[in-house]
Amino acid sequence: MFENKNRTEAGELGEFGLIDHLTKDTILYNKSSLKGIGDDAAIINTGKGKVSVVSTDMLIEGVHFDLSYMPLRHLGYKAVVVNLSDICAMNARPEQILLSIAASNRFSLEAMEELYSGIHLACKHYKVDLVGGDTSTSHKGLMLSLTAIGSADENKISYRNTAGQTDLLCVTGDLGGAYVGYQLLEREKRIFLEKPDFQPDLEGNDYILQRQLKPEARIDVIDMLNTLGIKPSSMIDISDGLASEVHHLCKQSNIGMVVYEDKLPIDSQTFEKAREFNLDPMICALNGGEDYELLFTIAQTDYDKIKGNPDITVIGHCTEPAAGINVVTKAGNTFPLKAQGWQAFS
Amino acid sequence: MFENKNRTEAGELGEFGLIDHLTKDTILYNKSSLKGIGDDAAIINTGKGKVSVVSTDMLIEGVHFDLSYMPLRHLGYKAVVVNLSDICAMNARPEQILLSIAASNRFSLEAMEELYSGIHLACKHYKVDLVGGDTSTSHKGLMLSLTAIGSADENKISYRNTAGQTDLLCVTGDLGGAYVGYQLLEREKRIFLEKPDFQPDLEGNDYILQRQLKPEARIDVIDMLNTLGIKPSSMIDISDGLASEVHHLCKQSNIGMVVYEDKLPIDSQTFEKAREFNLDPMICALNGGEDYELLFTIAQTDYDKIKGNPDITVIGHCTEPAAGINVVTKAGNTFPLKAQGWQAFS
Repeated sequence: MFENKNRTEAGELGEFGLIDHLTKDTILYNKSSLKGIGDDAAIINTGKGKVSVVSTDMLIEGVHFDLSYMPLRHLGYKAVVVNLSDICAMNARPEQILLSIAASNRFSLEAMEELYSGIHLACKHYKVDLVGGDTSTSHKGLMLSLTAIGSADENKISYRNTAGQTDLLCVTGDLGGAYVGYQLLEREKRIFLEKPDFQPDLEGNDYILQRQLKPEARIDVIDMLNTLGIKPSSMIDISDGLASEVHHLCKQSNIGMVVYEDKLPIDSQTFEKAREFNLDPMICALNGGEDYELLFTIAQTDYDKIKGNPDITVIGHCTEPAAGINVVTKAGNTFPLKAQGWQAFS
Repeated sequence: MFENKNRTEAGELGEFGLIDHLTKDTILYNKSSLKGIGDDAAIINTGKGKVSVVSTDMLIEGVHFDLSYMPLRHLGYKAVVVNLSDICAMNARPEQILLSIAASNRFSLEAMEELYSGIHLACKHYKVDLVGGDTSTSHKGLMLSLTAIGSADENKISYRNTAGQTDLLCVTGDLGGAYVGYQLLEREKRIFLEKPDFQPDLEGNDYILQRQLKPEARIDVIDMLNTLGIKPSSMIDISDGLASEVHHLCKQSNIGMVVYEDKLPIDSQTFEKAREFNLDPMICALNGGEDYELLFTIAQTDYDKIKGNPDITVIGHCTEPAAGINVVTKAGNTFPLKAQGWQAFS
């Protein structure tokens, strides 16, 4: 009924453009809806200064994961992590998840048990509760939909649109590892498909493989910031790559930004393996994506609280919007920072 | 990696059996998780006697809906209704939804706009807020995942496991219409597939078609019960058919039940069309499913408050568990009520 009309390809708008277009007329009827579409999670007022923080994600076989190298147990774990990371990105602690699964008859009961073992492991590790969801059949492949719920004091929530023009830009952990791990897995898969008796050579690459196959959500950082007495002036998770998320923060906060290439935290294994693939490690760090680290801004007066902290790196600073969004290379040259997202490499 | 092992078909356990099996070792770590898996929705304590009520559902093309007769606008509306109904079934008011959509490139931007127009219409009608979600591509078909969130006073929540042995059994609206509407649509589709120049004959069947294509969530009943000063002693929504849901209430509340066939509310159009299809209207009402009405129990002392209410019908009463779950036919015979669910007809 809808294929005979004049048609526009939905893909033309891109994922963010499509959501913006379809939800631009959204009206909020309830005063409990403090924040709707447009941040890492929705914020719902539950009264007396408390809020619920809610986010949902759908993961589809062949689009978001490849079971030829992603064990089901790891997939279950990662699916939970992806969702918890969105709650952390609001400076809140996740407490519950709901999970819907649709699987074709290719998946046996034992396969489903493997998947759930990863989900239960993540719940145990992060002390979050699986409180609902459903299972159904699909005609093809495996689909997961997760919803994560957290709670927080309303005045502790960090949005994307509240960074100040003189704030410092910080990132947790290190960058680019998940992307380089993905390159390694794809290479070994291609070789395996050409020579089925080939044994994958993954030794000595534990760190980048773990970054891709078993990432962690930075609830530890949320707890640490709370202990340090820091409320980020803005925050976002970097699932789509640092450069893309810097653009989101700047657009929503109406600021400019300077990122220093030589400040980007990159693990030595990520660096060496990127070189082996003839990739620029800096580009992997800026655009790789899937690192599930947190990108946030803090007031300059908070700098002493994080100075020397091994989990947090200051990689740049905010500016007035007219200055634009720039990266300063190691050689000292300044270029506009492009928001490519990880699709740029595909 | 999982196809070479000894395998058990996941389908052998049935949907409920599968969920039970996969989640039987679930541990709740947070004291805010008041109710996990096993009811229409999860209940999360938000403090000061208030709770959040959360439910999620996944709808998959070819499994849960058929776009050959379900317009996308109706699908969007119904997807919201299905989810809101789960919140109502806890005696709570839904306030927010989150929506994830995955669509193949078969779906144009115009098709997505149609789908969203139904979603926005439902949001407007029920005054619920679309506060989050995402869109992504799928390799095949259309998938929707919705999460609905409501709020309520903790002491007003109606669970499935709290019916009393002397309570009355009530149902809202009328039954079987969605199933008979489905039969009509399937018949016209079969004829159309055989004779493509055939014009579907749907005239004069508005009510049963609406029951299938554009059902409503009974938020009005939740408001009415509140006004009447009734808190159901147990409640469930009847998406899977009355008989199946009666069994859920009895199992979880450890009670028996008697349902009177001649009390079942059936619309005249449902009745006549069922006969035309050589279906027993009573069986359609008991096992048809997808009616999205509410089934609940009340204390006998509340009977006067609902007597003669056009939206509520008393269809039976609870008993001690040893008496079992029975239906009394119009002829006065008593039989065990089988929990077939709507699959019985497929």
